[in-house]
Amino acid sequence: MAEFPVSLEELVEAFRTLPTIGKKTAQRLALHVVTAKDACGEKLMKALQKTKEEIHTCAVCGNITEEEICSICASVKRDHSTICVVEDVSNLFAMERSGLYRGVYHVLQGLLSPMQDVGPEDIGVEKLLDRLDKKDEPVSEVILAISATLEGETTMLFLAELLKEYDVKVTRIASGIPVGGSLEYYDELTLMKALEDRRKMD
Amino acid sequence: MAEFPVSLEELVEAFRTLPTIGKKTAQRLALHVVTAKDACGEKLMKALQKTKEEIHTCAVCGNITEEEICSICASVKRDHSTICVVEDVSNLFAMERSGLYRGVYHVLQGLLSPMQDVGPEDIGVEKLLDRLDKKDEPVSEVILAISATLEGETTMLFLAELLKEYDVKVTRIASGIPVGGSLEYYDELTLMKALEDRRKMD
Repeated sequence: MAEFPVSLEELVEAFRTLPTIGKKTAQRLALHVVTAKDACGEKLMKALQKTKEEIHTCAVCGNITEEEICSICASVKRDHSTICVVEDVSNLFAMERSGLYRGVYHVLQGLLSPMQDVGPEDIGVEKLLDRLDKKDEPVSEVILAISATLEGETTMLFLAELLKEYDVKVTRIASGIPVGGSLEYYDELTLMKALEDRRKMD
Repeated sequence: MAEFPVSLEELVEAFRTLPTIGKKTAQRLALHVVTAKDACGEKLMKALQKTKEEIHTCAVCGNITEEEICSICASVKRDHSTICVVEDVSNLFAMERSGLYRGVYHVLQGLLSPMQDVGPEDIGVEKLLDRLDKKDEPVSEVILAISATLEGETTMLFLAELLKEYDVKVTRIASGIPVGGSLEYYDELTLMKALEDRRKMD
């Protein structure tokens, strides 16, 4: 049986390192890139090069930006006294898509994971504390918008404990049944949390 | 609502030009590339560059290769008197995966489509005829392994008509029920073809 040329195999492997791309999709993408007439490979290459040159992390919050400070941190329309802590940039954009949050963010570099030897210094906790220390921009609330997974819970508990030293209100987003979700499909823990976080209807 | 930086938007668009990649996946891939620490973007960029430099089409059959002639055309173990005509390189690899075919290939540049103004000269029919004209490598059979779509059928009928001028046997792969497929799920046309192409059991 004939095999892919070496450089094509390497392109397949490069595509496979991306999330959601399995072997079959990677092969399909690579074959498309080398055979299509629309120069999509070149376009992709240029776009990758450009992001590599222009995108870096915001000096304040860790969001991605082409400037020194991201558009959220630089905006005077945002409420700089509220910081929402998220675990990565994609979660920041997920929050932004909701269109409801008007404060600023702090993007962690992942979550605490004692099992994988990821400690507070690895995820940028220090930078968050530095922001709270600044007297010229007082922070009144820190919202933990972190996934309710094992690592997420660990991180939230750790941060909550740490933030007790500071004069800020610390909250976490509610756990519960997703909108449109049917009760019967969710586990006891989710139901318990949903019950705990119940709110008064008015 | 905060928006993606411009260069990131461009990367999203570049990913979207690839098959099977929709907007959400493109955003996810682009965000992963600019935020992940494993330099996967750079790896992908280099792999794209390398395929761009090294991969071109085989001078004989149109398959992709890093040499002048692809490994199939160059192989003495393959039967050069049988040419299997496929519509693109991915179908060539699909045939190769089956591991049964021992002849050589001819890769068309797509299929005839009068509606979209794609004629015989656009899909490389001439090159196939040139191969049949060569006296030093006589061809005894041309197998049309082309999809049973409207364009595919048009192309097969056209080629069959054209090849009548040549002293070759022209065959097409069988239409029928896929292995593991249940009769009830296939349309009348497929059943009719499957019935026509029935074979004696021995």
